[in-house]
Order: sequence, then C-alpha cells, then structure tokens
Amino acid sequence: MKINILSLFPEMFTGPLHESIIGKAVAKQLVSFEIVNYRDYTQSRQKHVDDYPYGGGAGMLLQAQPIFSALDALVEKQKNLGRIILLDPAGKRFDQKVAQDLADESNLTFICGHYEGYDERIRTRVTDELSLGDFVLTGGELAAMTMIDATLRLIPGVLGNTASAPDDSFTTGLLEYPQYTRPAEYQGLKVPEVLLSGNHQRITEWRQKAALKRTFERRPDLLAGLDLNEQQNKWLREFSTQKD
Amino acid sequence: MKINILSLFPEMFTGPLHESIIGKAVAKQLVSFEIVNYRDYTQSRQKHVDDYPYGGGAGMLLQAQPIFSALDALVEKQKNLGRIILLDPAGKRFDQKVAQDLADESNLTFICGHYEGYDERIRTRVTDELSLGDFVLTGGELAAMTMIDATLRLIPGVLGNTASAPDDSFTTGLLEYPQYTRPAEYQGLKVPEVLLSGNHQRITEWRQKAALKRTFERRPDLLAGLDLNEQQNKWLREFSTQKD
Repeated sequence: MKINILSLFPEMFTGPLHESIIGKAVAKQLVSFEIVNYRDYTQSRQKHVDDYPYGGGAGMLLQAQPIFSALDALVEKQKNLGRIILLDPAGKRFDQKVAQDLADESNLTFICGHYEGYDERIRTRVTDELSLGDFVLTGGELAAMTMIDATLRLIPGVLGNTASAPDDSFTTGLLEYPQYTRPAEYQGLKVPEVLLSGNHQRITEWRQKAALKRTFERRPDLLAGLDLNEQQNKWLREFSTQKD
Repeated sequence: MKINILSLFPEMFTGPLHESIIGKAVAKQLVSFEIVNYRDYTQSRQKHVDDYPYGGGAGMLLQAQPIFSALDALVEKQKNLGRIILLDPAGKRFDQKVAQDLADESNLTFICGHYEGYDERIRTRVTDELSLGDFVLTGGELAAMTMIDATLRLIPGVLGNTASAPDDSFTTGLLEYPQYTRPAEYQGLKVPEVLLSGNHQRITEWRQKAALKRTFERRPDLLAGLDLNEQQNKWLREFSTQKD
C-alpha cells in the first residue's frame, strides 16, 4: 500500500511510523509513506498557508491553494492517489468497518488540517471526510496516524500472527472476553479456574459468555446489530435478571 | 499538568509531544511528561513483558507484573498519579466532554497496552478505562496521544487564541459551520456572498443556519440532546421539507 500524508508537521510522523508494527510493515515493504509538507506549495511570499476567515471570527483557516497545489503535484508524480481523505470532526465516524474498507485499497492520501479549520473549498478535492470521534484535535496528524495504524494491522502479513486480527473486539461484533496470562496468582488476584482446567469446551463456553456479558454491561448498543443464537439469548436473559 | 505515560515504545512520543501546539505547551511549562518504559520493570530475566493466554488462543498478552511494578515506582516518586487511564477498546468512549473533564485534572497517567490484549488483573489498578472508538489499534500509544492532544488544547494558555476553543464542533453541540478564507474566488469556486457583505447580523444568522444544516445532514443524532430555540426549530422544519 502507498500512503500519502499532507501535513504541516512531517516530524510528528517520525516516531509513530518507524516504531513497532508500522515500522516493521515499512521494513517488510508492505507499505510505503510519502509525507508532503504543503507549506512547500504555498504561493505566499511569506510562506503562509493560513488567513483570516471571511465574515470575521476567531482563529485562522487553512487556505485552499496550498492543498490544491500539493495534490496537483502528487497526481502528476503518482497518477492515482487512491481515496483522498480529509480528517474532520464533521466527517463520517471512523470504525473497524471503515478500517477494513481502507485496508482493501492500494493507495490512500490523508490531508491533515491545522488551525481553527479549513477553507470549505478543500472539500471539493476529497473523496472521503473521516472523523476519529466527537472531539477536537489541534490538527489532523494524530487522527491520520490512528486510522493508518488500525488499517495497516488488517493487511495480511503486517501482524506477525495472522490469527490475531479476527478475534478482536468489534470484528466479532462483541467486546473481547477477559484474558489472563501467567502467573496463576499475582498479589492475591487469581486467574478464573476454568481457564486452568484444560477443558477446551468449557473454556470456549466461558469466553463466549464473558464476551457477551462484557458487551451487555458496557456497550449494549453493539448487541442491537447482531444475530444472536439461542444460547446467547438465554445468557442475555440471565444477565438481565441478575441486573434487577 | 503532569502526565505520565507507560509504554513499550517511548520513541513513538518524540515527534507528537515536541511538535506544534503540544510542544509549545511543554515549552511554556503548562504540561510536563514522564514516559516510562515498563519493560524496565519486568522481573523476567529475558526482559519479557508478555506471555501466552491461559486457556489457549492466538497472540500474546501483557502481564500484570511489569505494569504493577511501574505504577508502584511512580507512586513512590510522585505520590499522586491522578487518574490512571487504561486505553482499551472496551472502555468508555472518549469525547469532548471527557476531554474537558481530563483538562480539569492536575495529574494524569496513561497505560498503553500492546500485543493481543492484557491480563485482566491490570484493570484493578486503574481509575478509568477509555476507548478512542470502535476500532482496534496495535497499541495504546496513538490513542493516548490523541486524548492528550484533545485535552491539552482546552487548558487555558495552550492555544494562542483563547477565543478559539469555545466555537469548536461539539462544544456548541453542533458541527461547525462552513468557513472560507482568501481569495474570494479560487479556480472558479466562490465564497458565499453573505460572508463578504460586512453585515454582521446576516453573517451570524447564515452561520447559525449552516451549522444546524450540516448537523442535520451529517449527524442528526447530535440534535437529540440539544435545547433548540424557535428559529432553529423553524429551520429544521425547512430542511426536512427540502429533503423530501
């Protein structure tokens, strides 16, 4: 996958794109990044990329020209920029399904805004507007990195253990069941006995029930979209009774 | 504000915490960071911090001991760690309200997991479990940085222009209205005339209506929680009619 990032702060990406699993994906040539500082494309003599909002108001806005010109230069060089994604709190909410969609693409381009907002005309050049959630950041960089991380780990070969991704929270539709590793007792806190039993059927059942219970308690909204089986519905009735 | 971060990848934070607005907040001594590599606290001779899950399954889990010991060492040094936040997709959803709550604290501690998941007993040492959204990351680092960015910009003095934050999306309950900056026409795309009119009353009304319209079209769920005035309700009826 080829990923372009348009940003005023290319140095922000150095750590996150070189460490850990993303760094390994780059080393394995599963992904390559091109980070473009769009300040290099401004036609302003003072190298400004921002200006006051028409109609007044606080803060500065990112101008259209540096983004348009940076995209034009990338198109000339790469032909296909793939999906062009604007990071914006008013965009479509990013989630595991969107991550899966993006993981199927061969080219992605992220535009990271900054300042108070951007000139509305920038939206005419993008294919997607995505939001990381209902909060405001100082710029789009961390949102882009987060989406890239969630996306890349779904590409075959990026995670060492290919069996890891399908069990994740949200992939099954449920939150993940509680997990434990050694030692069996630590500072008085014990691992549930069933997990030490070696009885695979009991362990599987315990995990299915625990995943359902955690979802019921913390994120009942996730249950609405699921096609639950008879056993799961029975457990749900059991949890509801316990709750009263 | 004092922020502790427990992570296996301290280098990931170098760029994001030194650039842009967070970097300036550090320079102004409005915030200081202590980044702890909890691998330094493992009692494993091979410096491992992960192990296989009890009961079988793919992937490795973060063990309780390195986190418990790293927290103990921090408590000894700092006494008060403030809120201790575990980044987890099964946690409470982070949003602008949570950012505001965190901005009111003087100490925060973030625990960034890694691997397939963590030993459940780690949850006994935290005050909060927060999720950035319904997706899975390779580790908690980007989630922590994102929450820190959203939080710090709400602390007085961090944003240059103190008037900027209250106008944000979500702070008013609505998405932000479209904004434009110079030039008035760029590649045939024009700024709406009202914004060039100099008539402040008309501009304010246009913006209020545009913010409501964008929210109606993109995030009608946000409207449910708002106490709308008569004019806003009239506009909403107008949008609904147009939609049909």
